[in-house]
Amino acid sequence: MRLLARAKQLEAEGRDIIHLEIGEPDFPTPQPIVAAAHAALANNPMHYTAATGLPALKARIAAYYQQRYHVSVAPQRIVITAGASAALLLALAAVLDLGQEILLTDPGYPCNANMVNFLGARVRRIPVGADNAYQFTAALIQQHWSTATKAVLLASPSNPTGTLIPEAELVAVVEQVTRRGGVVIVDEIYHGLVYGQPPPSVLNITDHAFVINSFSKYFGMTGWRLGWLILPEKYSDVIDRFAQNIYLAASTPAQYAALAAFDPATLALLETRREEFQQRRDVLLPALIAMGFDVALAPQGAFYIYASCARFTRDSLYWCEAVLENAGVAIAPGVDFGAYRAQSHVRFAYTTGMDKLHQGLARLRDYIQPVFK
Amino acid sequence: MRLLARAKQLEAEGRDIIHLEIGEPDFPTPQPIVAAAHAALANNPMHYTAATGLPALKARIAAYYQQRYHVSVAPQRIVITAGASAALLLALAAVLDLGQEILLTDPGYPCNANMVNFLGARVRRIPVGADNAYQFTAALIQQHWSTATKAVLLASPSNPTGTLIPEAELVAVVEQVTRRGGVVIVDEIYHGLVYGQPPPSVLNITDHAFVINSFSKYFGMTGWRLGWLILPEKYSDVIDRFAQNIYLAASTPAQYAALAAFDPATLALLETRREEFQQRRDVLLPALIAMGFDVALAPQGAFYIYASCARFTRDSLYWCEAVLENAGVAIAPGVDFGAYRAQSHVRFAYTTGMDKLHQGLARLRDYIQPVFK
Repeated sequence: MRLLARAKQLEAEGRDIIHLEIGEPDFPTPQPIVAAAHAALANNPMHYTAATGLPALKARIAAYYQQRYHVSVAPQRIVITAGASAALLLALAAVLDLGQEILLTDPGYPCNANMVNFLGARVRRIPVGADNAYQFTAALIQQHWSTATKAVLLASPSNPTGTLIPEAELVAVVEQVTRRGGVVIVDEIYHGLVYGQPPPSVLNITDHAFVINSFSKYFGMTGWRLGWLILPEKYSDVIDRFAQNIYLAASTPAQYAALAAFDPATLALLETRREEFQQRRDVLLPALIAMGFDVALAPQGAFYIYASCARFTRDSLYWCEAVLENAGVAIAPGVDFGAYRAQSHVRFAYTTGMDKLHQGLARLRDYIQPVFK
Repeated sequence: MRLLARAKQLEAEGRDIIHLEIGEPDFPTPQPIVAAAHAALANNPMHYTAATGLPALKARIAAYYQQRYHVSVAPQRIVITAGASAALLLALAAVLDLGQEILLTDPGYPCNANMVNFLGARVRRIPVGADNAYQFTAALIQQHWSTATKAVLLASPSNPTGTLIPEAELVAVVEQVTRRGGVVIVDEIYHGLVYGQPPPSVLNITDHAFVINSFSKYFGMTGWRLGWLILPEKYSDVIDRFAQNIYLAASTPAQYAALAAFDPATLALLETRREEFQQRRDVLLPALIAMGFDVALAPQGAFYIYASCARFTRDSLYWCEAVLENAGVAIAPGVDFGAYRAQSHVRFAYTTGMDKLHQGLARLRDYIQPVFK
């Protein structure tokens, strides 16, 4: 965050900065979604929806799961939320009692741990490396589960690594957690952005997991703050009550807009964007490796590359600051995502167009080469 | 909530129900706000705003405080939130540590207590009656403050009573809480809807209180889920961090739409709506009293009347169910707002047009008269 503030300050001073640190797609909201919003604005008083969301949107989401994953999800298991953040907040609140513990990966998305603490529950961060695709394994669960542990949060594809949990391992993790009476929560917000075989949802394995998803990343609706939660049936009542008490309902215009998110025209556009992301990855990844970064495992999804910068520095935060100041390229340091090997890692985000990407690579190359020729 | 579900069920079966239980204005979003949303949709990619909100909207809010209350509020003390719910959540999280206690009135808005529990903090509900305008007094604070108490939440106008805290009492409460090292949080979401002398904000008394406000009620933007929080300067950093971690940012289209909320044309329209609400109150209040309800203190704001139904029943929940079933009028029972004298009170909301209001009154009269002639 300090780095982002500094990048903005430099820009305010007139410096040109290439942003490879931003976790938000550069694409605008797809036109069919915007058009649906215009239509809703013209015809709708924009009152509250039901706390768990617009029934028509829940039906679309259910149809999407049927079509994409071939699973049936009853509408009462779907809750429309103010972004994936609110979905995770609801799931954590429903699952974790005060003082209970959840296992998170290190590295992982930093807000997750803060949100758990916010609720008075506890986080245990488990170091994961490229050997496990930066994901939990059944063996890790077994090793780290304690009497206070109640849940585990997976993210697949992961932020910051872009890696997927292999299906067999997901099955084993679900089995391991279930046997211990625990709850599996899976963040699938980058599921739409996978560059190869589409992964299964955890719902293909069990009805008893929570799934976090969002209209932000794949569907290009970041600023609308709209996501969804799929929950095990037995949590329906408690989540409905929490939703009413904590945020009343998700944004009505956003929900009407999102009705167009699953239209064939929208999905076709989103697929061209996914291909564009893939092309960016396919440019960025070999270029970084050629420069001397180590990427132990090619990311399969999201728009991130988690790379070792050990060849250049023992202090990735300091190094990122130096790269920003001297090369005008913003990259996220490992410490933004945890502590494990954080000082030797950085995260690149390919959320900027190909021109900027090439420019950023050239600047990095110029910065690195004189030092490490 | 059970009553609302039953009302919907009856409607689904074809019954005509008059809704006097709904805490949401019947007016649509004002046209200038809708127009601003259309314009933003046409020109804006709808990416995330800063976590604490669009600088231009914060500037408008600051100008509104200057104009309406003659107080200066620095932009860094303003946080745009996903509705008043998120504003309260942030304030509570910033102020209350685990296990610490906040004083709430009984009766009061029911979600508040649930939100405190959600965060692992504790609620002490203090019975308040018409003799204190259903508000805290300095004497009550003194009487109920304990070593675990950290904060007090006021709501003026109050839901469910529509009553204001008198200015002198607000001063005394602030003084009392401040002397004890505590924090005052004031819910001012119904401030725009006061039917007489406009009340001062707590910010007229101190810069060290939290203010919760919202674009929902007065500004007619319920479904957009947009509110704001004004905080004491020293909480800026912690609230910024919480906002980033808990919800990232408020809805971008809603924030652009709300830029038009303070336009003279919008405010002129909102004033006609306020007058309409006042006319409804002035019809409803004497009619209820003539029917035999006791209203110890005429509500000065919001769109609620909290009335004693002791002449008709000793069990207001049961009575509300009977009124719904037999007269087709939905009213909120006292238990929705607390425990103190809840069985002898009900809340009427005048969030429906004059025709429906008269119809509802006629049905109530017909239901009550044969029994209590």
